[in-house]
Order: sequence, then C-alpha cells, then structure tokens
Amino acid sequence: MHFTSEQRLDDGVLEREFTLGEIPGILWTPESASSSAPAPLILLGHPPLGLGKMYPRLVARARHSAADGFAAATIELPGSGDRPRWPAVEQARADLRRALEAGEPVSDEIVDALVLPLVEKVVPEWQAALDALLALPEIGGPVGYSGGLISIGTRLAVVEPRISAAVLFAGSFVPRTIFDEARQVTIPLHVLLQWDDEGNERQQALELFDAFGSEEKTLHANMGGHAGVPQFAGEAAAQFFTRHLK
Amino acid sequence: MHFTSEQRLDDGVLEREFTLGEIPGILWTPESASSSAPAPLILLGHPPLGLGKMYPRLVARARHSAADGFAAATIELPGSGDRPRWPAVEQARADLRRALEAGEPVSDEIVDALVLPLVEKVVPEWQAALDALLALPEIGGPVGYSGGLISIGTRLAVVEPRISAAVLFAGSFVPRTIFDEARQVTIPLHVLLQWDDEGNERQQALELFDAFGSEEKTLHANMGGHAGVPQFAGEAAAQFFTRHLK
Repeated sequence: MHFTSEQRLDDGVLEREFTLGEIPGILWTPESASSSAPAPLILLGHPPLGLGKMYPRLVARARHSAADGFAAATIELPGSGDRPRWPAVEQARADLRRALEAGEPVSDEIVDALVLPLVEKVVPEWQAALDALLALPEIGGPVGYSGGLISIGTRLAVVEPRISAAVLFAGSFVPRTIFDEARQVTIPLHVLLQWDDEGNERQQALELFDAFGSEEKTLHANMGGHAGVPQFAGEAAAQFFTRHLK
Repeated sequence: MHFTSEQRLDDGVLEREFTLGEIPGILWTPESASSSAPAPLILLGHPPLGLGKMYPRLVARARHSAADGFAAATIELPGSGDRPRWPAVEQARADLRRALEAGEPVSDEIVDALVLPLVEKVVPEWQAALDALLALPEIGGPVGYSGGLISIGTRLAVVEPRISAAVLFAGSFVPRTIFDEARQVTIPLHVLLQWDDEGNERQQALELFDAFGSEEKTLHANMGGHAGVPQFAGEAAAQFFTRHLK
C-alpha cells in the first residue's frame, strides 16, 4: 500500500489516497486516531460508478464516520474509474439494458453474468485492502462494512471473519447463489431498503432480508427512491456501527 | 378528569391515576413539566389485557418518554381491567380462538367483529382524554400516539388532527376498512414489525405499511417474536418522537 496524496480536511479528518497494486483507494482517519488509540474501521462500499463520481457521497459518509471515531476506507471497483475496462461486465450491462428496454424479464443468466464476476474479483481485493489497512498502527479492529452492491456485502460477510457488522443497501439483480450464501451470514446486519426504489424489486429485497442467517438483523424501510435515503436513516446506521464496533 | 392518586417515582416522574367518567387512566409527567414549560404528550396505546397487567411495560415506556422530556398518558380499554365486561367482543374473541384451534382461516367477519367495535369505542375515548389532558397547564402539544392495536392507531391518525406523529406496532387481524383508512393517514409514521411474530401475518403487515399515505413513513423490522422488541428499536422509536414532537 502506497500513499499517493495526503490532505487534512477542515474538520481535522486526514484524507489519504493510496494504491494497492493497481487498485486506487482512499483512507480517512479521524484526528484522534493514533498508534496508542487506533480507530475501528468501516469499509465503504459503493456502486460501480468510479471513485471520482462517488467522491462527494463517500467523503460525506467518511466524515460522519470520523465524527463517531471511525476510520473509513474505500477502493475502486474493477472496471470502474481509472481501472482498466472490463469487457465481460460491460457486455453483461449491455445485455441487461437491452432486456430492460425491451420490457423482457431479466434472466438469471444476465444477473449472474452481471454480478458474480464482480463479487469474485472484488471480495479478495477488499480482503487485501483489509490486510494493508489493519497493518497501519492508527487503524485497529473491529471492522464494519457499509453499502455498495448487496451481493458483495453478503459474500464478504460470509468469507471474511474480521468483519463484525454490516450495513447493507437492498438492491435488485441478486444472483440465486447469493440467497444461499445469505443463510450463512451470522454477523449483525442493518439493512436499508428504499421502499419506492425504481431500480429495486421490493419483494426480492424482503426475501433476501428474510434469508440472512444473522440472529440480529434489522430492516429499515424508508420512502423515496434509490438516492433518497433520509438523513435520519443514515444516523440510525451510524448508531448501529457505534453499538457493534465500539 | 379526576385524579385519584399521586406518587413521585424515584426518577422524579410524577405518576397520577385518574378517572375520566368511567374510564381509568394514568398520567406520567417529567419533573421539568410546568405551566411555564409544558411538556409535549405521548399517548401510550396497549393491547386489551388490562392496565394492571400492562403496568410494568407502560411505566417503563413512560419513564423513557419522561427522560426525553415528554409527558405520557394511557387509558383503560373498554371491556378490559376494571371496566365492565363487553360480551360482544368476548364472543368475537371466542370465535377467533375457535377458528384458530380448528386451523380454519379467520374470516373477515370475525376480524371485523373483533376489532371494529373496539376502534369505534376507543377512538372517541382517546379524544376525550386528549381534551382533558391538554387542558392541564403542565401539558402542551404536540401530541404523539404510540403502540396498541394498529387499527386504533390508524383510525386515530386519520380523525384526530392534534396527533402529529405515531409509532405503530404491526399486528394481525386488521379489518379491510382500516386498509382504506390507512391511505388517508398523512402524519409521519414509525412502524415496528417483529419479523418472526407468531401472532402476526408478515405479508399483511407489509401491505398495511405500503398502504399508509404518509410522505414520511419508516418500517423497522427486527428479529424475534411479539414481545421481543429489542432495546435499540425502542431507542429508535424514542428518537422518532424527539424528531417530530420537539
């Protein structure tokens, strides 16, 4: 992990860009984090739109986390932002668009081709990032995961024992195999569902919530579309992490 | 409204029993409430098991509300506790039990006979209680309603403009007419759903949540049965009232 830039934001948060091999990422640490008082960490997932485009929302989430005493980190997704294009996933997106525009049902094949390669590639990258981040003296455990594609969060929650709690955003296009994996999740979960999300099958989201094996899981459903998560819902998610990571 | 007893609880909360005509009730006010600083009010709904049996849970909710600066009040339901028996509703309960024990579907007729007379009678009683409570100098607005049968809370939210926000508990046996009324509700709602509630049809609860006309409505679903609402879910409901009644 190489830091490539460093700046102190006006609220004292230290923002550092890094690269991990070919993967760009950003780490935010609260002013209070030090080797004698290492901060717990929240991994910030995000949709595959590129870190540049996602930066305003990511830095807002990171500042909120830092105010609660958490470090936060994110990495670029494969095929997004400055990373090399990924023709197979672009093909799957084109197939999805075509099906949606034609008003056809989205087949399991399209969903699998769209999501599973991403899950396969991203999860080990998050794990490598976790290795590097937890080696920093100012970062400690426990670790939470927040947001991004719910299929990635689900797989991570199953395979990565260092993740202690997760905030997941309900979304569509979840492969059947992820439903099976959801039954193996045991960590506390806080699932956000936008009730009127135009790009979301509500019934599928409720079935996935039902499938999770966690003893503590909470669903917070709010009105509005995909980007309309109300501020109080963000506060509730932050309180969930404070309850589980401190 | 006549106060029949008065005691100061160890956290400074003033607990007063009262009667309103034939209806017994209890009012709790925080130590800080006075005519120069009247407290907003939360009406505490409860299932028809009698105030005596419900007292431990009611006083716990009232103390929590008082710690947040709210007065809280409750009244006995008709046919419960020390109030006269109500043969028609007892008959409907017996019919319900018989249907459940026989494994038969619960007909709309049984549900209507079980719930609608209660709604018809209780809602005006809550409104009369509200008249009396808001006439007390130490009680001000705004007013919230919390808990009890969701059909009662729904009707109250439609017909009583002095209620500004409501916390509702999803429950079964909701008459079809209440679904129609739900579309007329416009106040902010916070709906609690116990995901594994043995006495609750989850799908019906989700449909009722969907039906509410409120622009701000939130569903909090948690694991566990009817009485297993986790403490953090109670905190979230309290924060909802603080957001809307202060």
